[in-house]
Amino acid sequence: MPAGDTYFIPQQRVAETMAIIGCGLIGGSLGLALRQRRAVGKVIGVARSEETLARAREVGAADETTRDVAEAVADADLVVLATPVGTIVRYLSVISSRLKPGCLVTDVGSTKATICDVARETLPATVHFIGGHPMAGSEQTGIAAARADLFEGATWVLTPTAEARPAALDRVQQLVAATRARPLLLSPEEHDQFAAAVSHLPHLLAAVLTTQAGEFAAAHPQSALMAAGGFRDMTRIADSDPDLWHDIFATNRDAAVKQLRSLVASLLCAADMLDRGDMHAVRELLAEARQFRRRLNEEGRPARGE
Amino acid sequence: MPAGDTYFIPQQRVAETMAIIGCGLIGGSLGLALRQRRAVGKVIGVARSEETLARAREVGAADETTRDVAEAVADADLVVLATPVGTIVRYLSVISSRLKPGCLVTDVGSTKATICDVARETLPATVHFIGGHPMAGSEQTGIAAARADLFEGATWVLTPTAEARPAALDRVQQLVAATRARPLLLSPEEHDQFAAAVSHLPHLLAAVLTTQAGEFAAAHPQSALMAAGGFRDMTRIADSDPDLWHDIFATNRDAAVKQLRSLVASLLCAADMLDRGDMHAVRELLAEARQFRRRLNEEGRPARGE
Repeated sequence: MPAGDTYFIPQQRVAETMAIIGCGLIGGSLGLALRQRRAVGKVIGVARSEETLARAREVGAADETTRDVAEAVADADLVVLATPVGTIVRYLSVISSRLKPGCLVTDVGSTKATICDVARETLPATVHFIGGHPMAGSEQTGIAAARADLFEGATWVLTPTAEARPAALDRVQQLVAATRARPLLLSPEEHDQFAAAVSHLPHLLAAVLTTQAGEFAAAHPQSALMAAGGFRDMTRIADSDPDLWHDIFATNRDAAVKQLRSLVASLLCAADMLDRGDMHAVRELLAEARQFRRRLNEEGRPARGE
Repeated sequence: MPAGDTYFIPQQRVAETMAIIGCGLIGGSLGLALRQRRAVGKVIGVARSEETLARAREVGAADETTRDVAEAVADADLVVLATPVGTIVRYLSVISSRLKPGCLVTDVGSTKATICDVARETLPATVHFIGGHPMAGSEQTGIAAARADLFEGATWVLTPTAEARPAALDRVQQLVAATRARPLLLSPEEHDQFAAAVSHLPHLLAAVLTTQAGEFAAAHPQSALMAAGGFRDMTRIADSDPDLWHDIFATNRDAAVKQLRSLVASLLCAADMLDRGDMHAVRELLAEARQFRRRLNEEGRPARGE
């Protein structure tokens, strides 16, 4: 182990036996990060396909693998649910009666209120649950895109509820620290509101913009040849998994609609400026956006690979 | 000169004396590309600041430089206007009486109808004008960002009007070929409509999204920590020069408004789906956008550096 890495070795392991349910980009990267840094004794990877599991073992994201969720969690003292939101909700019921007393359960789901509600209703009192959401990843998915440094410098939101035990929160923060991410404590409702503004709204916009440009290009094929870097940046996340995002919007409808309607009002305002030829106001809008972008860039800490 | 580059040396030079008015990202990169490939005899660079001119000479974007536009164009057989749209329009008047008979004038402005109209009204009949717009560049500006390979693989729109002489079009296509860009012939009006769809609309969206997220972050500072790759991609072009974009919107208002209002209608449609909980329709929207994005990615040819 290189000397520079020493301070990242946890003083005690985050877990002896850890089950990661879902070996995609996030679950796979988490297994890689924790195993490389020896933060866990053993990682048991769970996925639906044997191919994914073989790859997870091959790249070193898991020590052992199984398709049987119940079997995987039976001996685990830490369980991480790393699937899309809808599947996390279903697995909470599946694992509920199989968990060891004292087991810590966390997740990486992109919305938090629904998951935290279901966890509270479903899991036994002998088990600790702290919701989580690493703000990393991209339009790429799957174990093939997994990498140990995915979380470095990224914000990892944790949403402990009022019932959460301090010791459980400490442990999940150790887990986050071992990936070199930066923990941010929010309530589940705060998380979902904030995520609507900085993630779910941009996603919807990218989808609608891409569809409009795609329809325009069907009528005017040469326009596709004019799509340069700005267009590509703006539409990149439209190439994301529709099922994953279905679940996100299904569990954060109200906040997403609120953000969307507010944006529509601003867009109509911009259209009016253009209509009446108020180019001074348009220039102000552009100058203000530039200032905001620079400020957000300074305040937000970019994750690795941006 | 490396052997692999041989076929890019034009059989005859594009120009003996070329004036580039504006030594920013585009003008500077053009000078670099043409000088490196020996496609011109001499490049005279024009800019307002001595600092920019010194830098242009230093990096090899120009052989000679001057702040005097009239002086620069006096001996030129090729003039490229490489400033923001509003300045191109002004310079057309300034250079009009100074151009040599037979001189070819082109530009790199981001809108074309206004510029082509002004050129037709302003330039003497002894001079040839063909409008142009390389679809390259980014939120970065200035000679410091200039590079010889900026245009490689990018689409370079040319907008010859009915009066354009075939020989003039040939020559400006040689210029484009020497930068290794791909020429695309459109009418000025087609260019402006297409640009509204794939460039001007995305730009407005990025500005409005950034402003909304910035205002949200002012009220909820922790939300800025949650802005990940998707948000950064979607807002990158908001960090662009407001003056440059002021000119673009001022000269393409109608097409921009049309695109904007169409997008607003689609966004309201998406908001309604979310409101009434029609998640099947939301999933369809996301799946369709993904398909369009993949198709556009195949059809559009990305410029270097993306």
